[in-house]
Amino acid sequence: MSLESPDPEEGSSLPPTGRTRIGRKPERGSYDRKTLHSILDAGIVCHLGFSVEDRPFVIPTTYARRGDFVLFHGAPAARLFRQMETGREICLSVTLIDGLVLARSVFHHSLNYRSVVMFGAASEITGLEEKREALRAITDHLAPNRWEEARKPTDGEVRGTSVFSLPISEGSAKIREGPPVDLEEDRGYSVWAGCIPFRTVLDPPEPDPTLFPGALLPALLDHPRFEKNGFR
Amino acid sequence: MSLESPDPEEGSSLPPTGRTRIGRKPERGSYDRKTLHSILDAGIVCHLGFSVEDRPFVIPTTYARRGDFVLFHGAPAARLFRQMETGREICLSVTLIDGLVLARSVFHHSLNYRSVVMFGAASEITGLEEKREALRAITDHLAPNRWEEARKPTDGEVRGTSVFSLPISEGSAKIREGPPVDLEEDRGYSVWAGCIPFRTVLDPPEPDPTLFPGALLPALLDHPRFEKNGFR
Repeated sequence: MSLESPDPEEGSSLPPTGRTRIGRKPERGSYDRKTLHSILDAGIVCHLGFSVEDRPFVIPTTYARRGDFVLFHGAPAARLFRQMETGREICLSVTLIDGLVLARSVFHHSLNYRSVVMFGAASEITGLEEKREALRAITDHLAPNRWEEARKPTDGEVRGTSVFSLPISEGSAKIREGPPVDLEEDRGYSVWAGCIPFRTVLDPPEPDPTLFPGALLPALLDHPRFEKNGFR
Repeated sequence: MSLESPDPEEGSSLPPTGRTRIGRKPERGSYDRKTLHSILDAGIVCHLGFSVEDRPFVIPTTYARRGDFVLFHGAPAARLFRQMETGREICLSVTLIDGLVLARSVFHHSLNYRSVVMFGAASEITGLEEKREALRAITDHLAPNRWEEARKPTDGEVRGTSVFSLPISEGSAKIREGPPVDLEEDRGYSVWAGCIPFRTVLDPPEPDPTLFPGALLPALLDHPRFEKNGFR
């Protein structure tokens, strides 16, 4: 694999498969790489699913997208990572919740959301420099600019973690947006209907109790990934 | 099962099992039912993991907790629900992200979070009234008060959906809170360190384009589950 794979061409799509073809409400589905990438880039955590003797496990973890791969890391002793060394298939899901959809009828209540579900076998990244670059991507996805600001990992620290890469090759996105969809005969029901958007914002920073006086605030506070909740 | 099971006694815990015992950072783990319940009650969507011929699937869906059960629903034709009819085991995960944890060293960056991972076989709820009560719980968890406000489901609509109940019997919570934890020798590194909390708020309601003039806003806008982002 190459971490340097460029972003895909405009219009490039993943081929739907039996398990990624959107069966329910296909109008909400997308296989367009740019759409998948934009959802992956907006998420904070993914949920990784794996199967051990046909029993399912789901764990949340941080990640980053780099080109046509999703990168994630963890302790070599963790159950998930022990499983992954065997090259087994995993399922990676990222879900963003955009708002409450309030219909006239209870049955048409919903959420506006953007989600990605992907399948594949992850590969372990073993080269020291490639691993360092992957860790940088994961750090800067979660907390933009921190790799530059903070104390960088030593070679020993890089060696002491496991980093995996999952190709974006089988997956689909599902998106619901817009107003509620009520039955024609419910349109006259006398109740408020519409959407109420969710927004995730940052609250004021809480300095570490042992922080030296006068420390400059992190640059990520001015990064477009996050919105500040009424503080400078 | 009974949907009327009372909330558990103070101090009641789930027995840890081989797959729910927290291996990594056990100080963050909890088996206390009240802790699990509070995380489940605060979430919006869960991620359901299931295994088909030893291949993992993870899908996001809405849910509600009622007593010692988690309830969720879906279209009978959906892949997950076809699987569940065989009584197979699933894994249910709820993750709340509370903030960015910025350490002096890249390797100690983290998130503050609350998560629950549960295992078990879900049962289908088939009785019409029990099903209706479960749907009411799911609706009012997502959108408090809407069952009262909106047009309630007909018997036919209730029959046309599948509702499942997963007992809260094997699972654990994992919580990280508080400031970053740096190595002693990194404490003097001259970079800002601390936490930046996330907050999810509601933006102003967007009325359905066909809404009648003068409709009263939904009562959930004043419910403690949600915080309004600077509007009345």
